[in-house]
Amino acid sequence: MLTDIRLKDEKTIVGLMSGTSADGIDAVLVQMKGTGVGATITVRAQETLKYTAAVRAKILRCQGPSTTARDITLLDAYLGELFAHAVVHVCRSAGVPIAEVDLVGSHGQTIYHHPHPEKMPGYAVTGSLQVGNAAVIAERTGITVVSGFRSRDMAAGGQGAPLAPILDYTLYHHASRGRIVINIGGIANMTTLPAGAEQDGVHAFDTGPGNCLIDMAMEKFTDGRMQCDKDGLWASAGTVDDALLKRLLDHPFLTEKPPKSLDKDTFGPAFLGGLLTEFSDRQPKDTVATLTAFTVKSLTAAIMEFALQTARYEEIIVSGGGILNPSIMEGLRDGFPKLILSTTDEYGLPGKAKEAVLMAFLANEAVMGSPGNIPSATGAGRPVVLGSITPGQRVLELLRKKK
Amino acid sequence: MLTDIRLKDEKTIVGLMSGTSADGIDAVLVQMKGTGVGATITVRAQETLKYTAAVRAKILRCQGPSTTARDITLLDAYLGELFAHAVVHVCRSAGVPIAEVDLVGSHGQTIYHHPHPEKMPGYAVTGSLQVGNAAVIAERTGITVVSGFRSRDMAAGGQGAPLAPILDYTLYHHASRGRIVINIGGIANMTTLPAGAEQDGVHAFDTGPGNCLIDMAMEKFTDGRMQCDKDGLWASAGTVDDALLKRLLDHPFLTEKPPKSLDKDTFGPAFLGGLLTEFSDRQPKDTVATLTAFTVKSLTAAIMEFALQTARYEEIIVSGGGILNPSIMEGLRDGFPKLILSTTDEYGLPGKAKEAVLMAFLANEAVMGSPGNIPSATGAGRPVVLGSITPGQRVLELLRKKK
Repeated sequence: MLTDIRLKDEKTIVGLMSGTSADGIDAVLVQMKGTGVGATITVRAQETLKYTAAVRAKILRCQGPSTTARDITLLDAYLGELFAHAVVHVCRSAGVPIAEVDLVGSHGQTIYHHPHPEKMPGYAVTGSLQVGNAAVIAERTGITVVSGFRSRDMAAGGQGAPLAPILDYTLYHHASRGRIVINIGGIANMTTLPAGAEQDGVHAFDTGPGNCLIDMAMEKFTDGRMQCDKDGLWASAGTVDDALLKRLLDHPFLTEKPPKSLDKDTFGPAFLGGLLTEFSDRQPKDTVATLTAFTVKSLTAAIMEFALQTARYEEIIVSGGGILNPSIMEGLRDGFPKLILSTTDEYGLPGKAKEAVLMAFLANEAVMGSPGNIPSATGAGRPVVLGSITPGQRVLELLRKKK
Repeated sequence: MLTDIRLKDEKTIVGLMSGTSADGIDAVLVQMKGTGVGATITVRAQETLKYTAAVRAKILRCQGPSTTARDITLLDAYLGELFAHAVVHVCRSAGVPIAEVDLVGSHGQTIYHHPHPEKMPGYAVTGSLQVGNAAVIAERTGITVVSGFRSRDMAAGGQGAPLAPILDYTLYHHASRGRIVINIGGIANMTTLPAGAEQDGVHAFDTGPGNCLIDMAMEKFTDGRMQCDKDGLWASAGTVDDALLKRLLDHPFLTEKPPKSLDKDTFGPAFLGGLLTEFSDRQPKDTVATLTAFTVKSLTAAIMEFALQTARYEEIIVSGGGILNPSIMEGLRDGFPKLILSTTDEYGLPGKAKEAVLMAFLANEAVMGSPGNIPSATGAGRPVVLGSITPGQRVLELLRKKK
């Protein structure tokens, strides 16, 4: 029962994330004490369950405004099954019986995100559609599931993103040290945590591409044999092409004032395709080196412009797949010799697990009735409780009730 | 907070229903004590908020398998706004301050229902898609919302319908009197409650058309000036046409064994259109009389065949718009002279309010952790808690937390 879960001093929570790149399901199992700013989180297991090529293709086909109700309904139920499987899997990997898990937080797979108000009779509306049915997860696992985290922030006038800042704030805000938290996934984003700041002093926005351009280029150059520039080897073997880099750095997104966010397409396949055609005489390794430099330069420019100019910062904490690329990390280190550069791993949070941990964190906040958004990051009118709670129900509970 | 709500001896709950005919939003405000079989429900206000022609047209266009993600996402948010408005409206009509409402139960508007298992890699899935975003309702009203009642039953192997039997059982089951509960909406359905039966002795299924054929015919014959046969006047003025009635009674659905359910199309516009073309020489009033007789005959046949043959029944309790049609009620009375014919109104439940009351009832069950489905009616593998809970959050609660 929900009341029992709320009263527990420590909870065992599974977090599930499936990003728009549809590579697979990131699952974590964490122990969590407390709530909000007072929360502590320990990651006990982390797993990535890759989608099969067929499932990935199906998901990619189902992203976008014109996907049909039939596809949405069936994919909703189907991903619910796969997410339930991921819960079972990460529990096994942690050596935790599934009956000991208190909550699952599941982001779902985004089908369509519409953050800009659309006029309809009497109301202007926004919305975000994720699939991966919570009732299916709850029924297969018996665990209470929290899902649909973006809708409430949007109902309160926000863009439903970014959601990570509350976790960044909880884990890394510091009374006397200013910190910048960066996540380098497909897209790169940052959260600023000035020393001693309250939640309303937190800002967050996308800075530009993370690994997306590099990954797509690698896949193209190797005919699909490599999906990323492992250990940044191509980048370090190549030479940055000044003309190509200049072209990239001229992208208008870089000078837009935050809050700002990128959609899937801005630095998507079409953008890269046009670029590779125009600069087709470059060596592949030089191109990869240049795309890597672009990720670094857009990050350092954003840090310079939108963080260091307004407050003092002592540390940059990095998470996401980008931490595995030494070319990116060295670029950041060179850019800010006076700042400490660390990774969330050093703070006990595996960089790749961050978004799944966020889902576990938000599940706890929902059940405890604590707000999960930071209005200065999403644009919402107020802090609101995020997500809907689908009650778990174990067979044993039912038997007890019957008696 | 949810815990506070659970502990209340008596709850104030708003129930919202919007059927597939998309006429409008049925809203009730009820007082509810207890849970499950021990529950008592008092209806304090009942309102129907008609959709404007434009909104109705939009909803009807959005029903079906090929509606797009964009339309679904925007209609989800938009109907959330209208549902929130309906909550405010029914509270005002009851003279109850909105801050005194503990829960909203909202069915949502069905876009697509897929009850038959669809094979996908590794799993066969079913699903049901309703819109009318719960987070929007919760954010506008501050009230905790329970929604998405069908998914969990389907995750447990059921068809996600019918959901009414648990309310029928709760309100009308009797230790020594066998009762048949009939709802005559667009479609007619029945729930059998043998004397002294446990929940697993309850059966429920659709019997055939309720008012849908009569309403469509009236609209056609009057060029839209009349939407129904008010007080059954056309039916009583006309004469039943034996050939047409025979044709109708030959419909294979009538002899199918229960459990069985009708989709929107079986007795839809195409069916009626074909019939009216074939029998175009009949007088409109005779046709309406015959369609009315068909509703009565298919109901009485189902009662004879699938209820009276298997158990003893003393009473038929009717709800739904059909109770306003004397031709239907007289037909039922004539069919079963030995049974008492009553309406849910006589038991304190306005017939038109029943489905909205069901939503209020199911919201309470979800929050109390009690199952809301009856497996013998839906086909589910076990009784499960239905719905997802979206926490309400009043501005005052937030202020209290901040301190």
